[in-house]
Amino acid sequence: MFTMFTSHFTRHWFDQRSLNVWSDNSTLQAWLDVEVALAKAQAEEGIIPASAAAKIAEMGRSELFNLEHISAGIISTMHPLVPVLREFEGLCGEEAAGMLHWGVTTQNIFETGAVLQLRESHKIIMEGLESALTKLGVLARDNRDVVQAGRTHGQHALPITFGFKVAAWHAELRRERDLLASAGEQAFVVRLGGGVGTFAAMLGNGTKVQSRVAEILGLGVEDIPVRSAFDRFAHYISVLGMIAATAQKIAEEIVFLQRTEIAEVEESFHHGKVGSSTMAQKRNPQKSQNLIGLSRMLRGRVPLAFESMVRNNEGDASASNVSDVLVPEVAVIGASVVWLLDSLVGGLTVNKDQMKNNLRLSGGMILSEAVMMQLANVLGRHTAHHVLYDAAMETVEHGGSFEDAITRHEKVRELADSLDLKTLLDPASYLGEAGKCVDEEVAR
Amino acid sequence: MFTMFTSHFTRHWFDQRSLNVWSDNSTLQAWLDVEVALAKAQAEEGIIPASAAAKIAEMGRSELFNLEHISAGIISTMHPLVPVLREFEGLCGEEAAGMLHWGVTTQNIFETGAVLQLRESHKIIMEGLESALTKLGVLARDNRDVVQAGRTHGQHALPITFGFKVAAWHAELRRERDLLASAGEQAFVVRLGGGVGTFAAMLGNGTKVQSRVAEILGLGVEDIPVRSAFDRFAHYISVLGMIAATAQKIAEEIVFLQRTEIAEVEESFHHGKVGSSTMAQKRNPQKSQNLIGLSRMLRGRVPLAFESMVRNNEGDASASNVSDVLVPEVAVIGASVVWLLDSLVGGLTVNKDQMKNNLRLSGGMILSEAVMMQLANVLGRHTAHHVLYDAAMETVEHGGSFEDAITRHEKVRELADSLDLKTLLDPASYLGEAGKCVDEEVAR
Amino acid sequence: MFTMFTSHFTRHWFDQRSLNVWSDNSTLQAWLDVEVALAKAQAEEGIIPASAAAKIAEMGRSELFNLEHISAGIISTMHPLVPVLREFEGLCGEEAAGMLHWGVTTQNIFETGAVLQLRESHKIIMEGLESALTKLGVLARDNRDVVQAGRTHGQHALPITFGFKVAAWHAELRRERDLLASAGEQAFVVRLGGGVGTFAAMLGNGTKVQSRVAEILGLGVEDIPVRSAFDRFAHYISVLGMIAATAQKIAEEIVFLQRTEIAEVEESFHHGKVGSSTMAQKRNPQKSQNLIGLSRMLRGRVPLAFESMVRNNEGDASASNVSDVLVPEVAVIGASVVWLLDSLVGGLTVNKDQMKNNLRLSGGMILSEAVMMQLANVLGRHTAHHVLYDAAMETVEHGGSFEDAITRHEKVRELADSLDLKTLLDPASYLGEAGKCVDEEVAR
Amino acid sequence: MFTMFTSHFTRHWFDQRSLNVWSDNSTLQAWLDVEVALAKAQAEEGIIPASAAAKIAEMGRSELFNLEHISAGIISTMHPLVPVLREFEGLCGEEAAGMLHWGVTTQNIFETGAVLQLRESHKIIMEGLESALTKLGVLARDNRDVVQAGRTHGQHALPITFGFKVAAWHAELRRERDLLASAGEQAFVVRLGGGVGTFAAMLGNGTKVQSRVAEILGLGVEDIPVRSAFDRFAHYISVLGMIAATAQKIAEEIVFLQRTEIAEVEESFHHGKVGSSTMAQKRNPQKSQNLIGLSRMLRGRVPLAFESMVRNNEGDASASNVSDVLVPEVAVIGASVVWLLDSLVGGLTVNKDQMKNNLRLSGGMILSEAVMMQLANVLGRHTAHHVLYDAAMETVEHGGSFEDAITRHEKVRELADSLDLKTLLDPASYLGEAGKCVDEEVAR
Repeated sequence: MFTMFTSHFTRHWFDQRSLNVWSDNSTLQAWLDVEVALAKAQAEEGIIPASAAAKIAEMGRSELFNLEHISAGIISTMHPLVPVLREFEGLCGEEAAGMLHWGVTTQNIFETGAVLQLRESHKIIMEGLESALTKLGVLARDNRDVVQAGRTHGQHALPITFGFKVAAWHAELRRERDLLASAGEQAFVVRLGGGVGTFAAMLGNGTKVQSRVAEILGLGVEDIPVRSAFDRFAHYISVLGMIAATAQKIAEEIVFLQRTEIAEVEESFHHGKVGSSTMAQKRNPQKSQNLIGLSRMLRGRVPLAFESMVRNNEGDASASNVSDVLVPEVAVIGASVVWLLDSLVGGLTVNKDQMKNNLRLSGGMILSEAVMMQLANVLGRHTAHHVLYDAAMETVEHGGSFEDAITRHEKVRELADSLDLKTLLDPASYLGEAGKCVDEEVAR
Repeated sequence: MFTMFTSHFTRHWFDQRSLNVWSDNSTLQAWLDVEVALAKAQAEEGIIPASAAAKIAEMGRSELFNLEHISAGIISTMHPLVPVLREFEGLCGEEAAGMLHWGVTTQNIFETGAVLQLRESHKIIMEGLESALTKLGVLARDNRDVVQAGRTHGQHALPITFGFKVAAWHAELRRERDLLASAGEQAFVVRLGGGVGTFAAMLGNGTKVQSRVAEILGLGVEDIPVRSAFDRFAHYISVLGMIAATAQKIAEEIVFLQRTEIAEVEESFHHGKVGSSTMAQKRNPQKSQNLIGLSRMLRGRVPLAFESMVRNNEGDASASNVSDVLVPEVAVIGASVVWLLDSLVGGLTVNKDQMKNNLRLSGGMILSEAVMMQLANVLGRHTAHHVLYDAAMETVEHGGSFEDAITRHEKVRELADSLDLKTLLDPASYLGEAGKCVDEEVAR
Repeated sequence: MFTMFTSHFTRHWFDQRSLNVWSDNSTLQAWLDVEVALAKAQAEEGIIPASAAAKIAEMGRSELFNLEHISAGIISTMHPLVPVLREFEGLCGEEAAGMLHWGVTTQNIFETGAVLQLRESHKIIMEGLESALTKLGVLARDNRDVVQAGRTHGQHALPITFGFKVAAWHAELRRERDLLASAGEQAFVVRLGGGVGTFAAMLGNGTKVQSRVAEILGLGVEDIPVRSAFDRFAHYISVLGMIAATAQKIAEEIVFLQRTEIAEVEESFHHGKVGSSTMAQKRNPQKSQNLIGLSRMLRGRVPLAFESMVRNNEGDASASNVSDVLVPEVAVIGASVVWLLDSLVGGLTVNKDQMKNNLRLSGGMILSEAVMMQLANVLGRHTAHHVLYDAAMETVEHGGSFEDAITRHEKVRELADSLDLKTLLDPASYLGEAGKCVDEEVAR
Repeated sequence: MFTMFTSHFTRHWFDQRSLNVWSDNSTLQAWLDVEVALAKAQAEEGIIPASAAAKIAEMGRSELFNLEHISAGIISTMHPLVPVLREFEGLCGEEAAGMLHWGVTTQNIFETGAVLQLRESHKIIMEGLESALTKLGVLARDNRDVVQAGRTHGQHALPITFGFKVAAWHAELRRERDLLASAGEQAFVVRLGGGVGTFAAMLGNGTKVQSRVAEILGLGVEDIPVRSAFDRFAHYISVLGMIAATAQKIAEEIVFLQRTEIAEVEESFHHGKVGSSTMAQKRNPQKSQNLIGLSRMLRGRVPLAFESMVRNNEGDASASNVSDVLVPEVAVIGASVVWLLDSLVGGLTVNKDQMKNNLRLSGGMILSEAVMMQLANVLGRHTAHHVLYDAAMETVEHGGSFEDAITRHEKVRELADSLDLKTLLDPASYLGEAGKCVDEEVAR
C-alpha cells in the first residue's frame, strides 16, 4: 500500500509503537474514551442518567465498531464523526443512545482524542530523548580527552575533543527536551466547549463537566475552549521541529566524519549490510542519511502547523482538516527521529588515530592562534595576527614548515628563543576548558 | 491503519486511481519495467544474451514477488533495492540472474520507475484539469451576464458578473495546465548513468542503451544522467503547488460566497449530508474546505522539493530519501486537488437574486466610480473623486441616500441636471468589457 | 532607497523604535559594548592591563567610527569584523589595541551584540503585547453581553458574544506572551567561547570571564559556548511566528467583520483616509490588511531560523550569515506586528445593531441546537437532531418559518405545547457560559 | 541603516545594479512611465486630450517629485499611491491633472510598474546566467579529463572527472535559464483592468488601451486583467528559487572540495583577505558560504509567493502587500545569487594532484565495480558483487591490499590470471562516457 508510513519499502523508517498509537483503532478508541469520560462526568453532575453513562462505558470499545461501515457512512453523510456516533448509538440501545455526545461538537472529540494519543506519543518521544541523552552523555565522557580538529567554515580552526563536540549536542538536545516537556504540559488539555466554545448545550454545567472530564482523563483544562485556537499544538510541533533540526545537525556531522577522507567515526556496521547494488566497497552512513531525511520531513511540516493557527470565526475545517492529519504525522515522525538518533549515537565507532592524523594535516597551522596569543603578550594581538597571517600564507603558497615560517618572520626573530613552539604547536596543549565543559554538561 | 491516505476516516479525500498508481505493487512493477527494458536494450546491443533478456522479461511481473519477504530483506541489508534484486535473481535462474541490473545503480531504477508512475499520475491530473476547465468554461458562459458585487479589500468596489469571476479562474488554471504539460515533458526522462552518472559499467554503450530504454518506455533522455540533479521533478512539483494555490483561492471564494450572509452560491447538497453533529441547520461547504486543506498540504510540500535539489557530491540519500517519498505524495494530493476542484465547480448552484440583493446593500455607492468618471469629464478626475468621497462619507456616517448626497454637493449642484444618476447607479450599466473578456476566454 | 524597511512607500509599516534598535550605529555600538565589557572583565581577572580596558571603554563609542571606511574594509578583507577592529585599534593607540578582542572570535561579538539588541527589541515587543492585551481585555469586558452570530465553516452556528470572541483572542495572546517572556530569558545569554567554543585563548579563565561579562551586561551565560548552536534564537523566533499567526487570525476576522455585508465592526477611520484612487466610497480595513501582510512575512521567516540551526562542524557562515540578518528582520517585523495589532484592537468600532440584524438572518435556525437539546430530553439526542435537520432543510429549500417547520414535524406535534420556542429561539438565552469565560479571562 | 540590503556591513552581498533598479526613485519612475504610457494611449484613442497626455509625459519624471512629502502623505491618507497622484496633479496643472490615472486603479500601476522593473532585473539575471554558463563551460572543458573521486553518500564510489561534475552543473543551470527566459516572457504583461478588472471606466476602449500601452512599453498583455491573479509572478519567483537551489548545491560542493582534508579546489584568494579575526591561517570559502546564505534566503521566500496567489475576491491587499515587497527582494537576491555564482566559478583554482592523492585513499576500492563488472562476465553480476563485497570488507576491517584480497578469494583464485587488476584498478580507465558527456554538454 502506498504512503511512506505503510509501504513495504519504507515503513521500517518509522517507530512502530508510534504507528500503533495512531492506528485507526487507536484513534477510534481515543474518541470513545472521550465520549465515555464525558458521559461519566455528566452522570455525576446529574445531566444524564447514570445507567446511560454505564451503558456508554460498556459499549465504548473500538473492537465493537465496524470501520468499513463507518468509512462508507462518512462518504454518504460527508461528516467525519456522525457515522461513528450512529454505530455507537446502535450499540447502546435507545435510552443511552439519546444521551450520547451530549452537548459537545465533533471537533471537541477529535481534539481531545488527539491529545490522548499525542500524550502517548509524547511518552515515547520523551523516553527516546532521555535514552539519546544518556548515550550522548556516555559518548561525551568517554571521549572527553580525545583530541580532534575543530573546523569552522570547512577549514581547520583549533583543536577540540570529540567529547566536547558531543557535549554541545547533549546541551542542545537537553534544552529541547525541557522545552518539549513544558510544551507537552501546555498542550495536553481538554476542550469541550461545544459548537462555538460557550458550553451552550451544557445548561450552565459546562465548566464543571469539562474539569471533571479532565480529571478522569488526567489532562489539563483549556482556558476558553474555542475551536479556533491551535496555539498549544503548534508550539508543541515547533519544538519537535527544533529537535529535528538538532538531529539533522548531528546526523550531517556524522556523515561528514565518516567520509572516506575523514574517517574519524563510523556508524554501526554488520556483515550483510549493503551500501550499493553495484559498488561493493560502500559502507554508507545509512542511519544518518535516513535521519537527515526524516528530520527534513518533520521540520518541513512546521509551517503547516503555524498556518493552521489562522482560523476563521468560531470553527474552520479548512484549517482543522490540515491539523487533524498533521498531528499524527509529526508525532510519528518525531518519535522516529528521536529513536533513530538514539540508535545512531549509541552505535558510533570512534577512530582516535585518524583524528590525530587529520590534526597533523595542516602542519601545525591549526594552532596558529596559540602562537598568536603567546606573541600577543609581547607584540599586541593585532601585530601578532599579522605575523601569523604572513607565516601561514607563506606556508600555504610556498610549502615548507609552518614553524620555520614563524621563526623566520622579522618581527619574531629576536623573540624566537623565548617561544616554545614545540609545546605551542601541540594540539593537546590548546584545548582551553573543553574538558571542564564536558564534565559540567554531563553532570547536568 | 494510520496515515491520511489509508485511514478509514480520511482516505476518501484522495483520488483512488492515483493511490493505485503508487501502491507498492505498482511501484515494484515500475521498477521491474525499467529492469526489463534495460535488459531488452542491452540484449539488442549485444551486451547481455538475448535469452537472459527474455527470461528477465518473463519474470518481471510484480505478482511473482513476495513483498513481506522483501520488506524483511530491506531491514537486514539496510538497502532498499538489493532484496528485490535477490528475489528477481531467484526467479530468473542462474544465467539470466547474472545479467540483471547490468551496469546501473539503485537510484536509476527508482527514479526512472518514479517517472513511469508520475506519467500515469500526470495523465489523471491533466484529465482532471481539462474536465475542470470545461466546467469552468460552461459556468463562465452561463453566468456571463449575471451581475454581482465586485469586492476589493472586503468592501464592495464595482459590479462584475459571476461569469467574469469564473473566467478569470479559467484563465489562471489554463495557464497552469500549459505549464504542467510542459513541466511533464521535461520531467519524464530516463536516467541510467550508473553509480556516478558516467555509464562506467556500460562499456561505452551507455548513451546508446539509455536512448533505447527511453524509446521502449516512451520517455525522453536525461542530458547528463547524474544522480545529483532533481530540478526536473522540482519544477513539476512547483507547478503542482501553483495549481494548489489557485484551487485554494477558488475554494476560499466559494466558502465566502456560500456564507450565511452572502448566500450567492452553494455547493452541491444532497439529503443526508450532515453539517454538524449538533447544529442540524448547518449546510457547510465541505468540499471547498476539504479542497483548501488538500491544497495547503500540497503547497506546503513544495519547499521540500526545492530543498531536495541540494545534494552532496554524486549521490546523496539524505536528499533522495525525501524526494522518493515526496513524489508519490504530491502526485496523489495533486490529482485529488484537481478532481475535487472539478467536482466542486461542477456542482455549484448560483443564486442570482441574492447577488442582486447584495448589490443593493451599499445604496448605490458601489457605483461611485461610474459617477466620478462622468463628473471627471467636467471637473477633472481628482475633483470628481473629492466630490464622491464627500458624498460617500456623508452617506456612511449620517445615513440618507447616496444619490441625494451627490446632488447636494456644492460642486455638483449646477451639473445635476445633466447627470443621469439613475442610469449611472445601475450596476448592469457599468460592467465595462466583462462580457467580452468572458467570451474571449471561453474561446481560448 | 529600496527595501521595505527603508522605502518612502513602505517604511511606515514598521515600528520606528525597533528600526533604531537595529540601525548600523546601534549594531556597531552593541558590538563595542561587548568588546568593552570583555576588556573590563579581563582586566578584573588580570588578563589584560586595567589601563588598556579603560582606554577600550573610552573609545568604544560608535560615533567615533567611520562606517563608510569600515564598509570599504569589509570588501577588501572579505571579513565582516576585522575592519571594525582595525578602526578600534587605531582609536585605542598601540598598547590598548594589542589587548582588544582578546581571546574571542567574530561570531562571539556578533551573537552577543545581537542578544543585546534583541533584548531591546524584546522590551518593545513585550510592551506592545501588554498594551494589546490590556485593550483586548477592555474590549472583551465592554462587549461581554453583546450578542453576535457565532459562525463555523462559514455558516451561522450558535450565538456568541463579541466579548467572548475577543476573550479567546486575549487568552491565546496571553499564552504567547508567557512563552515569549520565557523564550527571551533563555535566549539572552553571552557566548564567548572563542574560535571553537573551548575558551582556548583565555588561559583557563574563560568560564570566569564569560560569567563576568554576563554580569556586566545583565545577561545569562551559555552552557557550552559553541558557535554551532542556534536553538535559543530559533525558539524565540518561532514564538514570534506564533504571535504572527494569532495576529493574522485576529486581523482576518476583522476584515471579515468589516465586510460590506457583515458590517459588525469597523477599524478606526479619519476624514482624509482614502480607500481607493478611483472608488471614493471605499473604507478599507487597511490596518488589518497590513497586519496580515506583516504577519505572513514574519511567519514565513520561521523556516529560515530552523534551517539555520543545522550548522557544519564548529562554525558555519553559510548558516550564520542567514541568521545574522534574520534576527534583525524578525525583531523589527515582530514589534511592528504587535504594535499594529495594539493599534487595531484599540480603535475598533462595534456595531451592535448590525450584529443583531445578522443574527436574525437565518430565521432562528442559528438556535436549532437549543431546540434540539430541549427535545433531546424527551426524544434522545439523535432523534432530536433528526427532527431539527428535517425542519431546517425544509426551511432552507421551501422557505417559510423555521418555527412552523419544527412544530409541524410529526415527532414534535404532541410535544409542541410544552416547547417554549419563543424563548428557545432567542439568541440571548443560549449563550452558555460565555459571560463567565469573559470574566475569568479578563481577571487572569 | 538597518536592513541587509542597505547596511554598511552587508550591502556588498547584493548586486548593486539590481539595487538601483528597485530604488525608490526607480520605482516611482516606473509608476510614472506607466501613467505616461496610459495617457499617451488614451490620447490616441481620443479618450483624453492630446495636450493633457503631452503635459503628463513632460511631468512624468521622478526627479520632479518630493519623496519625503509623498511619504508623509501616505501616512495621512493611508493610501500608497494617492499622494503620488496629488504631486503629479500639482505638476501637471488643472487640465492635465484631471486626465491623469484615467480609468485605472492603484494596483494596475504598481503591478505594471513592477513588471517594468522586473524586466530590468531579469536582464541582469539573464546576463549573469549566461556569464556563469560560459565560465562553467570553460571549466568543464578545461577539466574534461581531470580524474577525481566520485562520491555518493559521503563515500568514495567511482572515479569521475572534475569536468564531468561541472558539466552536470552546466546542464542544470542551462535548463533553469531556459525556464527563466520562458517565465519572464509570461510574466512581463500589462494589467490595466481598473478596480475589478473589467475596464469599467474605459468606456469600452479598455482592451484597446491596454494593448496600446503594452506596445508602448514593449510588454505583453494580460488575458483577463484581474487583480486577484499572481500566478505569472509566482512562477517566475519559483524558477528563481530553483536557481537558488542549484547555486546552493554548487557552493556547498565547493565548500566541501576546499575543506582542509580534501583540498581539491580553492576559491580565488588575494593577499589581504582575512579568514578569521583570531585564526590567522584560515582561508575560508567566503564566496561559497555567502552564496549558500543568499540562496537560502531566496529559496525561503518562494512559499510567500505561492501563498500570495491566494487572494480574496477581486482585490486583496493582505496578499498584494506581501508580493509588492517580495518581488523587489527576490529580484535583487536573485541577481546577487547569479552574479556571485558567476564570480565563484570563474575564480576557482583546481588542484589536480590532490585529486589524484584522494583517489588513492581507498587503496583501489573505489574501482571495485570495475573489477566486479569484469568478473560478472564469468560469474554473473550477483556472485561478482559477493566476491567484491567480501574483499572490500576484509580490507576495511583487517587492512592489507584490496588487490590481494580479491585474488585470494576462493571464487577468483582460478580466474586470477585472466584478470588484469592493474588496469582495472586504474581510475582513468573507468570513466565511462564522462568525456563524451562533457563534450556534448559544452556544445549545447
